[in-house]
Amino acid sequence: MLKNIPSILSPELLKILMEMGHGDEIVIADGNFPAASLAQRLVRLDGHGAVGVLEAVLKLMPLDIYVEKPAALMQVVAGDTVETPIWDEYASIIKTSGEKFDGFEHIDRFDFYDRAKEAYAVVATGEKALYANIILKKGVVA
Amino acid sequence: MLKNIPSILSPELLKILMEMGHGDEIVIADGNFPAASLAQRLVRLDGHGAVGVLEAVLKLMPLDIYVEKPAALMQVVAGDTVETPIWDEYASIIKTSGEKFDGFEHIDRFDFYDRAKEAYAVVATGEKALYANIILKKGVVA
Amino acid sequence: MLKNIPSILSPELLKILMEMGHGDEIVIADGNFPAASLAQRLVRLDGHGAVGVLEAVLKLMPLDIYVEKPAALMQVVAGDTVETPIWDEYASIIKTSGEKFDGFEHIDRFDFYDRAKEAYAVVATGEKALYANIILKKGVVA
Amino acid sequence: MLKNIPSILSPELLKILMEMGHGDEIVIADGNFPAASLAQRLVRLDGHGAVGVLEAVLKLMPLDIYVEKPAALMQVVAGDTVETPIWDEYASIIKTSGEKFDGFEHIDRFDFYDRAKEAYAVVATGEKALYANIILKKGVVA
Amino acid sequence: MLKNIPSILSPELLKILMEMGHGDEIVIADGNFPAASLAQRLVRLDGHGAVGVLEAVLKLMPLDIYVEKPAALMQVVAGDTVETPIWDEYASIIKTSGEKFDGFEHIDRFDFYDRAKEAYAVVATGEKALYANIILKKGVVA
Amino acid sequence: MLKNIPSILSPELLKILMEMGHGDEIVIADGNFPAASLAQRLVRLDGHGAVGVLEAVLKLMPLDIYVEKPAALMQVVAGDTVETPIWDEYASIIKTSGEKFDGFEHIDRFDFYDRAKEAYAVVATGEKALYANIILKKGVVA
Amino acid sequence: MLKNIPSILSPELLKILMEMGHGDEIVIADGNFPAASLAQRLVRLDGHGAVGVLEAVLKLMPLDIYVEKPAALMQVVAGDTVETPIWDEYASIIKTSGEKFDGFEHIDRFDFYDRAKEAYAVVATGEKALYANIILKKGVVA
Amino acid sequence: MLKNIPSILSPELLKILMEMGHGDEIVIADGNFPAASLAQRLVRLDGHGAVGVLEAVLKLMPLDIYVEKPAALMQVVAGDTVETPIWDEYASIIKTSGEKFDGFEHIDRFDFYDRAKEAYAVVATGEKALYANIILKKGVVA
Amino acid sequence: MLKNIPSILSPELLKILMEMGHGDEIVIADGNFPAASLAQRLVRLDGHGAVGVLEAVLKLMPLDIYVEKPAALMQVVAGDTVETPIWDEYASIIKTSGEKFDGFEHIDRFDFYDRAKEAYAVVATGEKALYANIILKKGVVA
Amino acid sequence: MLKNIPSILSPELLKILMEMGHGDEIVIADGNFPAASLAQRLVRLDGHGAVGVLEAVLKLMPLDIYVEKPAALMQVVAGDTVETPIWDEYASIIKTSGEKFDGFEHIDRFDFYDRAKEAYAVVATGEKALYANIILKKGVVA
Repeated sequence: MLKNIPSILSPELLKILMEMGHGDEIVIADGNFPAASLAQRLVRLDGHGAVGVLEAVLKLMPLDIYVEKPAALMQVVAGDTVETPIWDEYASIIKTSGEKFDGFEHIDRFDFYDRAKEAYAVVATGEKALYANIILKKGVVA
Repeated sequence: MLKNIPSILSPELLKILMEMGHGDEIVIADGNFPAASLAQRLVRLDGHGAVGVLEAVLKLMPLDIYVEKPAALMQVVAGDTVETPIWDEYASIIKTSGEKFDGFEHIDRFDFYDRAKEAYAVVATGEKALYANIILKKGVVA
Repeated sequence: MLKNIPSILSPELLKILMEMGHGDEIVIADGNFPAASLAQRLVRLDGHGAVGVLEAVLKLMPLDIYVEKPAALMQVVAGDTVETPIWDEYASIIKTSGEKFDGFEHIDRFDFYDRAKEAYAVVATGEKALYANIILKKGVVA
Repeated sequence: MLKNIPSILSPELLKILMEMGHGDEIVIADGNFPAASLAQRLVRLDGHGAVGVLEAVLKLMPLDIYVEKPAALMQVVAGDTVETPIWDEYASIIKTSGEKFDGFEHIDRFDFYDRAKEAYAVVATGEKALYANIILKKGVVA
Repeated sequence: MLKNIPSILSPELLKILMEMGHGDEIVIADGNFPAASLAQRLVRLDGHGAVGVLEAVLKLMPLDIYVEKPAALMQVVAGDTVETPIWDEYASIIKTSGEKFDGFEHIDRFDFYDRAKEAYAVVATGEKALYANIILKKGVVA
Repeated sequence: MLKNIPSILSPELLKILMEMGHGDEIVIADGNFPAASLAQRLVRLDGHGAVGVLEAVLKLMPLDIYVEKPAALMQVVAGDTVETPIWDEYASIIKTSGEKFDGFEHIDRFDFYDRAKEAYAVVATGEKALYANIILKKGVVA
Repeated sequence: MLKNIPSILSPELLKILMEMGHGDEIVIADGNFPAASLAQRLVRLDGHGAVGVLEAVLKLMPLDIYVEKPAALMQVVAGDTVETPIWDEYASIIKTSGEKFDGFEHIDRFDFYDRAKEAYAVVATGEKALYANIILKKGVVA
Repeated sequence: MLKNIPSILSPELLKILMEMGHGDEIVIADGNFPAASLAQRLVRLDGHGAVGVLEAVLKLMPLDIYVEKPAALMQVVAGDTVETPIWDEYASIIKTSGEKFDGFEHIDRFDFYDRAKEAYAVVATGEKALYANIILKKGVVA
Repeated sequence: MLKNIPSILSPELLKILMEMGHGDEIVIADGNFPAASLAQRLVRLDGHGAVGVLEAVLKLMPLDIYVEKPAALMQVVAGDTVETPIWDEYASIIKTSGEKFDGFEHIDRFDFYDRAKEAYAVVATGEKALYANIILKKGVVA
Repeated sequence: MLKNIPSILSPELLKILMEMGHGDEIVIADGNFPAASLAQRLVRLDGHGAVGVLEAVLKLMPLDIYVEKPAALMQVVAGDTVETPIWDEYASIIKTSGEKFDGFEHIDRFDFYDRAKEAYAVVATGEKALYANIILKKGVVA
């Protein structure tokens, strides 16, 4: 633990956030996401909700303003009737963080998997809400 | 995640608990414990309290009945006036778990470090309470 | 060994089952399957029958309800007259496990190999029955 | 699997038996033995009884005739009233194997641990009987 | 060394033969074969003739009866006048081993290289005869 | 780079500072220190002065208040007439950081080396001042 | 540190410069460049400006005279109004170094990324100026 | 060092020459060749001329007589006026070695790079002559 | 294989012989020697007799003339009545090799093991003769 | 190769010289020195004389002025009548290098071995002169 660093961030995750550059992406994945099979670099935060992780990450990492929507969600699969109230929480956290926010990009499930494969890292949380996966694109640090 | 396995346990921790045998010890360490410098095998559970981790571990791992006190705490350093209410929570969780409990062994800070070096694994939690480190000795699975 | 965990599961296999996410696949392979040459992650359970392994795996891992048939078998090669009574045992175990079951998907031998290459893991049992290989797709843990 | 090789032996175990030379020792450990913390080379045979493993090992590996008692057991700890009928089964298997047998060496629990640390390998079975650990010293292959 | 195992087989080779499954191939290569550059898994048996190695391998490994010709040779390159009497020795050993034998498959030099790249392992012998390379496809162990 | 993290800290150094616990030590070494031969974990910050590194580290890491002097310097070797004005800069930075400061511990050159061997990490700067090595003992994060 | 070697160069970077041959490329990247995700070999020089690094590199490494423009810059993205005064500093340093200089090659952002992937190494500086990334192609050492 | 082995050959290079089989290639590269970026296996012989290395290699390694020209040179790039007297030395050494020699194959610079990528090994000498790179194809050892 | 190098020597063994310096020792071990448990570097030559290996080694490696007896044998254990005719073969080969020979040093079995642990390498042959282990001390190459 | 760096120095050796700090030692060893068995870090410069290596090293690395004799030689073994003219060459090179020189420290053969084990690195040259081993202690870079 360190002064002024959210204690939910592991040393490895902090290192990864710092290594990432402009345009690199990180996935905050829910507990059912196939994180281990897709991730180039896997950070496990078992037992944690995704909201707390998102909030901590945005304390340190800016979002990319060179694209319109630097945060992306996995679309609900056709026929699935599950609700996704966690998306509103995500929107609220991003707005509060001071980063620019114009709504989310929405990506089909299997396209989301492909993009996760290209991401710099995947954070495997224990989030139990479904469709709670979110991709963040890192911006420039002034 | 799996059915009937507490989701706070990481895959690596579950593997380690299963690998341990009769008499092997595991340390559940608070957020200020020098876990990385002492551990033979380090499992990070950043951001989690130690109580929840202890509870989850005891769902799966029996304590050793071949010794009198299979759970050990780090003594408060002489001169330190901090209170340790978390010890009562630990006692309560062990009793509730169904494992035999006759009070804790108490170990001096630097002796505790030496024993942690010999332990099979150290779990680094984000517990903020001081003196919240606990060593568990694994028992026989019938 | 741990309380409430089938002892036929190795620590490594338990870790792998826990790491797998929604849609990831695992192959339970018979003793003649070319497991070592195909597997991305290989778990050996030499000397065990596949039925016991399947039963233990389903105690912990749900099957995917987003596909019609989350369990797949290798078809008997044309011209081969061998019987496959073990398939009935498999069906019976899946039904007993409480997972939804609408029959197996059947896959040609070499297509089965290709799919095994993409699977998260292959468990090499010592099962002596022929065509006793089965692929399981992991579902969502509620 | 191979012709004429007991299928309970894993490829790794077979390799280890073959690498061992005159005087090297192997431990066949029960399911509660702290195998992972003591072993220089660990072979897991989860879910198997120790009797079947012993029988298979002795099909291939001769015992040392340069010492009086090339097979050693862990003594029952003072005060423990458990019975050890598995020892008779071990004796019977050794006699049947054709190896010379003049009774077991008996070793105190913690001395047994020390000797396991020096052994070439430890085989972790899932044997549920207590005090079912046995050390074998390899002999000369003529 | 072990009882009943040909001593020409190294521990590593024995492990590899045991890991191989139905349809996996192994190349027994002569001393001039580019084994190190092609092999996925390389076993060196420097100084040994290929005939002794073939004989030992077939004591343990069955050939595939699902293909017509489970043993393949490298064709003599056009224009090369070398004789290949070792092929007759190979045929004789296979027949003696009890495995079914209907003649060899013959493969062009560079196609042979490609197939060696896909083989589970290559055994580099010190065989001095030219064109003494042979591919064996493993069968089912009953 | 990240928001609010001094950019002189490398991702690896940040990870190490976070991994360290109560009582773990880190050495900020000058450019002539035998860092690579002594360090358990080596972080290179070639070309940087030690003052800037110290200042950045203390932004994140508290000093230990369980010992009297949590910062230690290497004594000037007897007979060496070099001045050490950098020590005053160090004192000033520590005071400014808000950490408690009661003067430095002074350690003989070779004792300093021994203690560096036990430290969690050594940061190799390019500091050109002589005797500019400093050991910091990490305190508790509230 | 060594005599006559700029102290800003790390041992690893010096080794890499020496390993590079005619035509190999190295990227000196600014602090926002996605260096860790693109680099085949990553050298971190956190906290340093790119100008000092460029100057030090050119003390040791000649530029390629077999191509017209052995130094390449990342073009400003369309719509971005940022100024790039650092380019003039780069030009001045190259001219001063004694290497031939006929202006820079200019490369689109994503083409620059592709070329960085093929480069022998990427040096991640802490340069805060935007568009401060530069690729150098090594020449022949006479 | 060994009796009858040229002392310019490193242990690693000798091992590599011995591992190579019929048709495998080795590159003896001059000091400006991008050896580290192209080589599958890199052997450094810094500070040595290429002529001495070639002479030593041919003491042990035969050239391939199944191709017309088992030794290949990099062509001078169009427009480059450099002389290549070292080629005559190479020719003279090959003839003296007793290997068959019918002149060199000549390969364009970038094709030469592609072929070096496929070679079994590249030896990086410190040869200062330009265009002093040579590829050798290993022949059959009788 | 190479010209003028005995083909019984593996590439790895040749490399090891070359790496060894004045006073380094190598053990040529029989098939029952516990080579894998004692060796710092293990070279397997399964299936070969020790005589052929000794002969090949002495073609390349000189013996140490700074000690009286640079070749050592394992003494027959007291009570063992086995004959050791292979020692005469060893003596004959050493004399023929041109190396100075004044008889063997004889070492007790367990002292021999200790010395094997310190040796640079152990060659595990398949030699079936008992007490056929021999230690060679490398001399100076002129 | 780089501008102004002696080409006899390998990239690895240059990196090692740069990593070394005040008081670290490097051994330049002759061709018969048991370098591989003693070195913590081994740099091979096969085929080179030690004089050229010493000269190149001293171009970059200062000697320690905190000890009286920062260069040490291996004493001639009692009874050995070999001459050591190379020592005069060494003395001459050190004087020419501009480093302070007050004669060599002389160390017994086996004490020299012990000190080589503690050295930061050993450079294995192909020097054929006997007793040509030299230890250098690195000084401070101003």
